[in-house]
Amino acid sequence: MMNGSSPIGVIGFGVMGSSMALNLAKSGLPVLGYSRTASKVTALEHSGITLSSPDEIAQLCGVVLLSVSDGPAVQEILFGAYGIAPKLARGALIIDTTTNAPSEALSFATKCSELGLDLLDAPVTGGDVGARNATLTIMCGGPEETFQRALPFLNRIGKRVVLMGPSGSGQMMKAVNQVAVGLSIVAMTEALLLAERRGLNSAQVLEILQGGAAGSWALSNYAPRLMSGDLKPGFDAAHMLKDLKIALKEAAGHCSLPGTETTTELFEQLVTLHKGVGNHALIKAYKN
Amino acid sequence: MMNGSSPIGVIGFGVMGSSMALNLAKSGLPVLGYSRTASKVTALEHSGITLSSPDEIAQLCGVVLLSVSDGPAVQEILFGAYGIAPKLARGALIIDTTTNAPSEALSFATKCSELGLDLLDAPVTGGDVGARNATLTIMCGGPEETFQRALPFLNRIGKRVVLMGPSGSGQMMKAVNQVAVGLSIVAMTEALLLAERRGLNSAQVLEILQGGAAGSWALSNYAPRLMSGDLKPGFDAAHMLKDLKIALKEAAGHCSLPGTETTTELFEQLVTLHKGVGNHALIKAYKN
Repeated sequence: MMNGSSPIGVIGFGVMGSSMALNLAKSGLPVLGYSRTASKVTALEHSGITLSSPDEIAQLCGVVLLSVSDGPAVQEILFGAYGIAPKLARGALIIDTTTNAPSEALSFATKCSELGLDLLDAPVTGGDVGARNATLTIMCGGPEETFQRALPFLNRIGKRVVLMGPSGSGQMMKAVNQVAVGLSIVAMTEALLLAERRGLNSAQVLEILQGGAAGSWALSNYAPRLMSGDLKPGFDAAHMLKDLKIALKEAAGHCSLPGTETTTELFEQLVTLHKGVGNHALIKAYKN
Repeated sequence: MMNGSSPIGVIGFGVMGSSMALNLAKSGLPVLGYSRTASKVTALEHSGITLSSPDEIAQLCGVVLLSVSDGPAVQEILFGAYGIAPKLARGALIIDTTTNAPSEALSFATKCSELGLDLLDAPVTGGDVGARNATLTIMCGGPEETFQRALPFLNRIGKRVVLMGPSGSGQMMKAVNQVAVGLSIVAMTEALLLAERRGLNSAQVLEILQGGAAGSWALSNYAPRLMSGDLKPGFDAAHMLKDLKIALKEAAGHCSLPGTETTTELFEQLVTLHKGVGNHALIKAYKN
C-alpha cells in the first residue's frame, strides 16, 4: 500500500487543500479526497481526484495529507468523531499541513507514534497563489526519517520544504511567520490609510512604497487586491487571528511582542465586524 | 549662473548627503559642499567636490541641495544663523531632501517664494545603498514647474522621482513611507525574537520568512546586518523616531494608527537606550 501507485488521502478541501490535492493529482498520484462539503471534492473529479470517506481513506491510504481549519479539527479527524488514526495501517504517514499550536502538533505526533504511525507537522505559507502554483514554503517538524518519507509528496506541492526540528517545530516556524505577515499587513494598512486620509494618490503611493525600504510581499500582492475592492480571501482573516493567538501564546513567558499584540487586537476587531474576508481587508477594522 | 556649468551647492554631508553629492559630482557637475564638519567634505575633494561656505554657496550657486537632520536645521540654514535664502539670487532653486514635517515644508516654500526662490520638498527613500547607487526614490512636493527644474538634478541621484502634489506632499508621502518602514522593522524584529527565544535556527527562519508572504525589503536588507551583529546605521534609529512622530502628528484628527503608535514607543525606547544605532537594531529595545 505504500508504493508509488497506492492512493494518497487528502482531507480538507478549502482554498489550500483543493490546490494541494490538484497538484498531487497532476503529478500522477491517485488521490482520494474527503471534505464535509462533498461538492468541493466532486468538483475536482475531472482532475483525477476521487470522492472518498475518512474510513475508506484510512483503509486504502498509506499516506494522508490533512488541510483543515485548526487543531480541534485535526483532533476530531485523527482521534475523535472521524478517528482515522486507529484505523490506519501501522507505518502509515500523516502529513498535517493545518496550522495548529506547536503543543497540539507535538501531542498529535506522540499519540500517532503510540499507534505506530508517523506524523509530520507541515504548515505552509505562500497563500492561495503558492498553493495553486505548487510554490508553497513548507515548514516541517518531526524526526528526520519522517521528513524524508514525506519529502517526495511535499515536493509536489511546494518549492521550499524545510525541516525545522522535532515535532512542533514546523508549527513554531509558522507562528513566527504569521507574526511577520500580520505586522506586514498592519504596515500596508496604516500607510495606505494615512495616505488616503491626507489626499495622496493611491497608485503613486503604492508604486513608491513598493520601490523602497517599505517594500513587502503584502504590498505587492495584497494592496492591489485591496485597492480594487476585492476583499475575498486569499487567506481568511479569521485564520490569521487564530494564528496570531497561537504566536502570542508561544511568546508568553519568553518575550513580549507589543506589535503582535496590537495586530491581534486589530484582527479581532476585523473578524468581529466582517465575516469571510481576507486578511488583507484589515483596513475595515480602522474604518468602523 | 543657472546654466549647465554653474556649480550646485550641497549642504549636509551625512550618510545620504555625501552619496548624493558624490553622484552629482560623478555626473560632471561642479559641486560646492558645506558641512559643519569640514572633514566630511574635504574627504571627498578627490571626487570633484570643493569645500565651501554657506555664504559662498548662496553667492555662486543657482541650485542648492539640502540634506540635513530635520526641519529646525533647514530653518537655520535658510532663514536663521546661516540664512542663505535672502542671499541667493532671485530665481534660485532649493531642493530639500531632508525629512521634515509637511507643514514645515509648506512654510519653507512659502517664505522662499516671497524671496523669489523656488523650493521643492524632495525627501528620499532607499537607504544608504540607494544613495550610493543613485537608485533612491524621491518624493516631491511643489509646483509642476519647480519639479521640472529640479528633475535633471534629481535624476542623477535617484531612480524613481515622483511629484506627489503641492508643497508638503513629498513630506506627506515620506511620512506614509516611514509608517510602512517602521512597522516592517517591527515585523522583522518580533518574528526573529520569537524564533530565537523558541530555539529555531535563525538562518533557516530568515530563508523561510523571505520566501513567503512575510517577505520584505527589511527582512532582505536589515535582517542579515542584524544577525551579523552590525548595528551601525544605515538609517539612524533617532531619525526613524523623528519621522514616526511626524507621521503620528499628520494622522491626528484624520485616522488612528495603533500599530504606528506601538512602533513609535519601541523606537523611543531604543533611542533612549542606544545612541548611534541603525533603525534595524530595534530588537535592542525588546532585550533591555
